[in-house]
Amino acid sequence: MQDFVFLPIMLTNDLLLRAARGENTERIPVWLMRQAGRILPEYRAVRSSVNGFKELVKNPELICEVTIQPVDILGVDAAIIFSDILVIPEAMGLNYEMIESKGPFFPKTIKSSADVEQLTTDVLPNLQYVFESIKLTKAALNNRVPLIGFAGAPWTIFSYMIEGKGSKTFSEAKKMLYVNPVLSHLLLEKITQSTISYLKEQIRNGADIVQVFDSWAGVLSKAQYIEFALPYMKKITDAITEVPVILFAKDAHYIIEEFAQTNCSVIGLDWTIEPQKARSEAPNKTLQGNLDPCVLYADKEMIKAEAEKMLRAFGKQNYICNLGHGVYPDVDFEKAKYFIEVVQEFQVSSFL
Amino acid sequence: MQDFVFLPIMLTNDLLLRAARGENTERIPVWLMRQAGRILPEYRAVRSSVNGFKELVKNPELICEVTIQPVDILGVDAAIIFSDILVIPEAMGLNYEMIESKGPFFPKTIKSSADVEQLTTDVLPNLQYVFESIKLTKAALNNRVPLIGFAGAPWTIFSYMIEGKGSKTFSEAKKMLYVNPVLSHLLLEKITQSTISYLKEQIRNGADIVQVFDSWAGVLSKAQYIEFALPYMKKITDAITEVPVILFAKDAHYIIEEFAQTNCSVIGLDWTIEPQKARSEAPNKTLQGNLDPCVLYADKEMIKAEAEKMLRAFGKQNYICNLGHGVYPDVDFEKAKYFIEVVQEFQVSSFL
Repeated sequence: MQDFVFLPIMLTNDLLLRAARGENTERIPVWLMRQAGRILPEYRAVRSSVNGFKELVKNPELICEVTIQPVDILGVDAAIIFSDILVIPEAMGLNYEMIESKGPFFPKTIKSSADVEQLTTDVLPNLQYVFESIKLTKAALNNRVPLIGFAGAPWTIFSYMIEGKGSKTFSEAKKMLYVNPVLSHLLLEKITQSTISYLKEQIRNGADIVQVFDSWAGVLSKAQYIEFALPYMKKITDAITEVPVILFAKDAHYIIEEFAQTNCSVIGLDWTIEPQKARSEAPNKTLQGNLDPCVLYADKEMIKAEAEKMLRAFGKQNYICNLGHGVYPDVDFEKAKYFIEVVQEFQVSSFL
Repeated sequence: MQDFVFLPIMLTNDLLLRAARGENTERIPVWLMRQAGRILPEYRAVRSSVNGFKELVKNPELICEVTIQPVDILGVDAAIIFSDILVIPEAMGLNYEMIESKGPFFPKTIKSSADVEQLTTDVLPNLQYVFESIKLTKAALNNRVPLIGFAGAPWTIFSYMIEGKGSKTFSEAKKMLYVNPVLSHLLLEKITQSTISYLKEQIRNGADIVQVFDSWAGVLSKAQYIEFALPYMKKITDAITEVPVILFAKDAHYIIEEFAQTNCSVIGLDWTIEPQKARSEAPNKTLQGNLDPCVLYADKEMIKAEAEKMLRAFGKQNYICNLGHGVYPDVDFEKAKYFIEVVQEFQVSSFL
């Protein structure tokens, strides 16, 4: 494992950072992907006060408010800055719209090398609202818990830039890999450079740890992941030495051993991965995850049983508890809160 | 492996059946999931002559025609009866609509035990059009190649009956597993009994081998697959002793070892599974798959290289070549045809 610079300011609750660094923790830290969002009535109130999702994403005061909501309401052990992975393509010059109940849509997509050449990697001037949000949030958090920064993985960002919208198969994006690998690598490299600058500036402004989300990893074969996705994940983990990096490649069950060879500190897992399998494939890394988000639809008894089964399977050390994907928007936030409590009250003796 | 009844009539090309039974084959048999369908201009002509997809599915003469088209045009080593997995919920009493460019939609879904009780398992009277289609097709094929019958897996059919339509997460269907496991097992059992009757009657009418498609397997954790899906797959493979059974659970990378313990003859694989991994996890079974469907967007040189890499990895015996999922509708059928040729011309010496 790499060494990390000691934090100049002590956090009241630094469990997540200690777990990420492989240090002992007195209990298991827990947060939820998409914890800042639609499950909270307080979020929905803020969301309905603005005109569209993108207006929210660009408003540092509101970002600060919704980022801290789950810390106050759910009692999670970390905040994650509220934003969108698609701010990067936008900052590179490819504008997107967020269409209500449908998802993102890019009016213009990448079709040629000329399109790639027109993209900038000088993205920081276009992302000041994110850094401003991080600064504000870091101050408002008052060092209660760590603040997580994040970005989309190069392959996932590439998918949107080629496909222009969500897709079950991302066949257009994958087609580009097969028919124009040169253009593909050129674009992936540009996204990677932008992402590294972006993450470093998030850290400079207060992010204590960063997560890279490869949401569409699962549409790739292992060979394609190794050719078109892994090298760029490696570049990111090599470049970000300031804080721990979490890699999360959803549905890429075949890549855990390869991630274990990178300089990441934490590997995120979806719920199709058995804890024992991940432990044996990445014995040197902290693992994060991986409860099926649908467990939070169950009654409290089952939530407790499923959560504790998972905690026992992962063990207490080198582990950050989370769901295996973002919390679903129609989950009762009281159930989410109960899950957090179950994890935080789980005792060392419970392992016996 | 189980014994199979010898076929009373010899097929001119029985490579697929021999491979399924684990017998030696002089070359690797190949077919494509969704080979009868939108990639063929001849299919599109038939499709546009009828008023909607369901009218086609219920017309035995047209089914016969589109089922045989890929045998004539692509030269595949098997025909698969053109139909839809959703004929089973419909025959059980849950009607569906096929909405153009959107997919299936069930006006009524299963919400209560009373809903489940109303469903019939006496499905054969409602599926005569399928058996008629199989009889006609079997006769028209004139024993050139085997005819594959199929059904959806109980979990996948259950998903549609609860969710009412396609979904990225199938969170409603999964919610039912967690909040009402008793109802879930009741419904899964009814689907299974219907499916067994359905497959047996397909075989009685001429299907030489059957495939069970678990299209939405990948949304389940391993524990849930083992509780709610695998037992019903086992019941099917235990019940169908007349012909070989192919199990295909898309994205369920964790279930290959368990499938190897069932009475299935063949395990279908998607393209995220490495051939060597599958061979080591299911050394006793014939494997089927698993080229990334997007390879067929590439030029011929790459199609040949990727296909041959896969053929070498699987080896010549106990193997049926296919894609890792259905062929994508916008693939040039000449590319699909070229892929078939590459596989069929692949020589034993090419393994050296």
